[in-house]
Amino acid sequence: MESVERPLCYARANRSRFLQELKEFIRIPSVSAQPQHAGDVKKCAIWLVRQLRKIGLNRALIFPTDRHPIVYGEWKGASGSPTVLIYGHYDVQPVDPIKLWRTPPFEATVLEGNLHGRGASDDKGQMFTHLKAVESCLRSSNRLSVNLKCLFEGEEEIGSPDLAGFIERNRRVLAADVALISDTSMLGFNRPGLSYSLRGQLAAEIEVTGPSHDLHSGNFGGAVHNPLQALCEIVARLHDGGGRVAIPGFYDRVRLPTGRERDFLRITGPGNEQILRTAAVKSGWGDNAYTLYERVALRPSLTINGISGGYAGAGGKGIIPSRAAAKLSFRLVAEQDPREMEALFRAQIARITPTTVRSVVHFYGSSWPAVIDRQHPALRAASRAYKKAFGRRPILLRSGGSIPAVSIFQQALGIPTVLMGFGLPGDRIHAPNERFHLSNFYRGIETSIWFLHGVTTALRSRCRGECVRLLDRNPAEPFSVRP
Amino acid sequence: MESVERPLCYARANRSRFLQELKEFIRIPSVSAQPQHAGDVKKCAIWLVRQLRKIGLNRALIFPTDRHPIVYGEWKGASGSPTVLIYGHYDVQPVDPIKLWRTPPFEATVLEGNLHGRGASDDKGQMFTHLKAVESCLRSSNRLSVNLKCLFEGEEEIGSPDLAGFIERNRRVLAADVALISDTSMLGFNRPGLSYSLRGQLAAEIEVTGPSHDLHSGNFGGAVHNPLQALCEIVARLHDGGGRVAIPGFYDRVRLPTGRERDFLRITGPGNEQILRTAAVKSGWGDNAYTLYERVALRPSLTINGISGGYAGAGGKGIIPSRAAAKLSFRLVAEQDPREMEALFRAQIARITPTTVRSVVHFYGSSWPAVIDRQHPALRAASRAYKKAFGRRPILLRSGGSIPAVSIFQQALGIPTVLMGFGLPGDRIHAPNERFHLSNFYRGIETSIWFLHGVTTALRSRCRGECVRLLDRNPAEPFSVRP
Repeated sequence: MESVERPLCYARANRSRFLQELKEFIRIPSVSAQPQHAGDVKKCAIWLVRQLRKIGLNRALIFPTDRHPIVYGEWKGASGSPTVLIYGHYDVQPVDPIKLWRTPPFEATVLEGNLHGRGASDDKGQMFTHLKAVESCLRSSNRLSVNLKCLFEGEEEIGSPDLAGFIERNRRVLAADVALISDTSMLGFNRPGLSYSLRGQLAAEIEVTGPSHDLHSGNFGGAVHNPLQALCEIVARLHDGGGRVAIPGFYDRVRLPTGRERDFLRITGPGNEQILRTAAVKSGWGDNAYTLYERVALRPSLTINGISGGYAGAGGKGIIPSRAAAKLSFRLVAEQDPREMEALFRAQIARITPTTVRSVVHFYGSSWPAVIDRQHPALRAASRAYKKAFGRRPILLRSGGSIPAVSIFQQALGIPTVLMGFGLPGDRIHAPNERFHLSNFYRGIETSIWFLHGVTTALRSRCRGECVRLLDRNPAEPFSVRP
Repeated sequence: MESVERPLCYARANRSRFLQELKEFIRIPSVSAQPQHAGDVKKCAIWLVRQLRKIGLNRALIFPTDRHPIVYGEWKGASGSPTVLIYGHYDVQPVDPIKLWRTPPFEATVLEGNLHGRGASDDKGQMFTHLKAVESCLRSSNRLSVNLKCLFEGEEEIGSPDLAGFIERNRRVLAADVALISDTSMLGFNRPGLSYSLRGQLAAEIEVTGPSHDLHSGNFGGAVHNPLQALCEIVARLHDGGGRVAIPGFYDRVRLPTGRERDFLRITGPGNEQILRTAAVKSGWGDNAYTLYERVALRPSLTINGISGGYAGAGGKGIIPSRAAAKLSFRLVAEQDPREMEALFRAQIARITPTTVRSVVHFYGSSWPAVIDRQHPALRAASRAYKKAFGRRPILLRSGGSIPAVSIFQQALGIPTVLMGFGLPGDRIHAPNERFHLSNFYRGIETSIWFLHGVTTALRSRCRGECVRLLDRNPAEPFSVRP
């Protein structure tokens, strides 16, 4: 077994530069959902591909998609060794409400040991740990013990609409033995976590319209149905009194957890108190038949993410607004098919829309749920790597979040994903004042170094490597960008 | 009886200048609800006081209030004649949603015989008819047959919070025999209307809060109550299935209409079809025990004017928002006390707020409903004036709208108000593309000339004039600006 001392030494010696580079990365406002940031997303992709070249990969490319570019890089100097596919996303969530940020979201400011900024934890900071681990290996020892492929997308926060097609078309080039993603949370400070389950997602918008223009609320109030009120009535009917989603058929394919699964979650996962503390609320909500952790880990959900309709400025405005819209997102669990959920949701909205208004449903992005074999040797290698860097074995966690790539890798490439979380529950991802704990940034780099070093031995025990190498025989196989 | 020929002639000869001046008036964006327009509201008050001097009043003043100034003017040259108090408001509604305007809202553009712009009908265009009528009399004949007081406020669209106090403190100076307001609608083109009833108003905001910051909808969706969803649930419970307001006690003081009243409304008022056509909707909504006209004219209502909460930008955002708020306005009918409604509403919101979130209710502005004696001689004078200018007698209408000044004049000054509407149902007041029909602007001026000329004779039949003149003995009595 080769020494990891040189890469670790290099990583420790370069911490301050690594942080400066991460700040540069965060300063590019790559908000994928907002058209006005399309140029920034592209700029960020260019920054990233230059970074891949700088750290020593021998191929780094940008691929346009219908929306935001995909960045790819590879290093194939470990002949006969398995291939690790590192995935991350360089796009970020919108920053609204901007006035609640303590520091400008795209300034990247260190406050009390945390790096604050949009994307600090989700996912620029987390994905950057692996790039800096790879750099530490290649620049200190001139080699890695695995072959490496890197795939970074700019559309994760809008549901990865172009990722599946790109991977399907380039299955041979992207072939690997295992994927590695850091885009999840640990259980707490010094409590590392390896996620083995993710929920799927389905994002939708309901638009309700009534009169062709806003009406004077005095002249028409009480005589014309208010589309905004009708939208509230529709939204209120999407859950029953017990906090369950009230869409006929919604739970039909949801598998009930076994007693063993529930025991495992009870022993390993966060308790109700920890979840309430992290959310900063006094009491939970939802289906009382399940613990709070089970509700996000095992059960599907429907969340109203935003409503717009009528007047939202200072003071009042005496109107019946002519339209109103709600953005919603489902989180789906194993066996729930996003396409089937689309049909069920559309039918239910049609059913409960009052005849006095009109409604339309749009969908924008979906992904499948994913469960990873907890016994896979790559997870064991990841566990050992955490033990080296954090001094503790990680806990196996179910995450309530969604990473479309994971199910795509399962379905298109037939590989599992190691979800190596370095985020903390209090990182405020998607919210104002997102942050990333610097000690997790540095320990994340070391965990990745240990993993890239140890995963070869772990995977060699499996026969899969061979067929993968067969697919991967052409080191510069051409990519297919368009369908 | 003096001739009105000279004023009418003057008005006709000066139409084009009158229109230019009205455009100037509309171009000042005096949006009272929005703090960023406070300077514009003040600018508009200064423009208006100059206008009062230009048209020949012999006293014109601006009074500051806690928010926006009150403009006062008078002409007292008709010794022994009654006094008419003209009221109007020079503030306007916000312009959102701005992108739906065909012409910039503060440009004042003539399109197909209509003057388009925010405030064109509500109320700059309508109140300006009286100023130009007064100018036509004073500049052509050097006199009016009545004494005149003008009171223009800049806070009507925010519920006239400072008007009652100002009038209470200056009852003697403002004493008059009748008030004249044009801030209502006719029944249709060539179908003039005199309103004799207005609904009161109560504006409120409900704010619902949950977690201290937005939460990731994957990590917490299904386990933490969403304040935006809770707000929808609260709003949905404010009406019952039959479109009645579901607040205990809300209807307790609402007087049931007599058969005669309902007959009068059926004969004089707009039918369901006309109301639906004006609103551009296919079907009505609300309490089926009443016609659509009755629902806005005789019954109280509650309208959701706007909701803000969560993400409203392009694409999606995977969050449980930490807060959400709804703006609402009640329209109240005779016997309903706005202060009592505040208490009932606050209690109901507390009662139906789920324990998993917190709610707060704010109120910002209220006014009392008002009913005017249909037999009052000033209304008969107004009716004759319409007949002269429009060729038709006006229909007596109940308006669903609110003008706080009317009940304040009744309570503080003991005088009725002539609500001489020149607006059309299709004027889109409060909405994008507000407009004022130019023929109604010009005929409104002539109606006002006829009214100012004829009201003296009508009022002399009443004894009230005497006590008013007694109060009004000091022609330059000092104003009291602060309580």
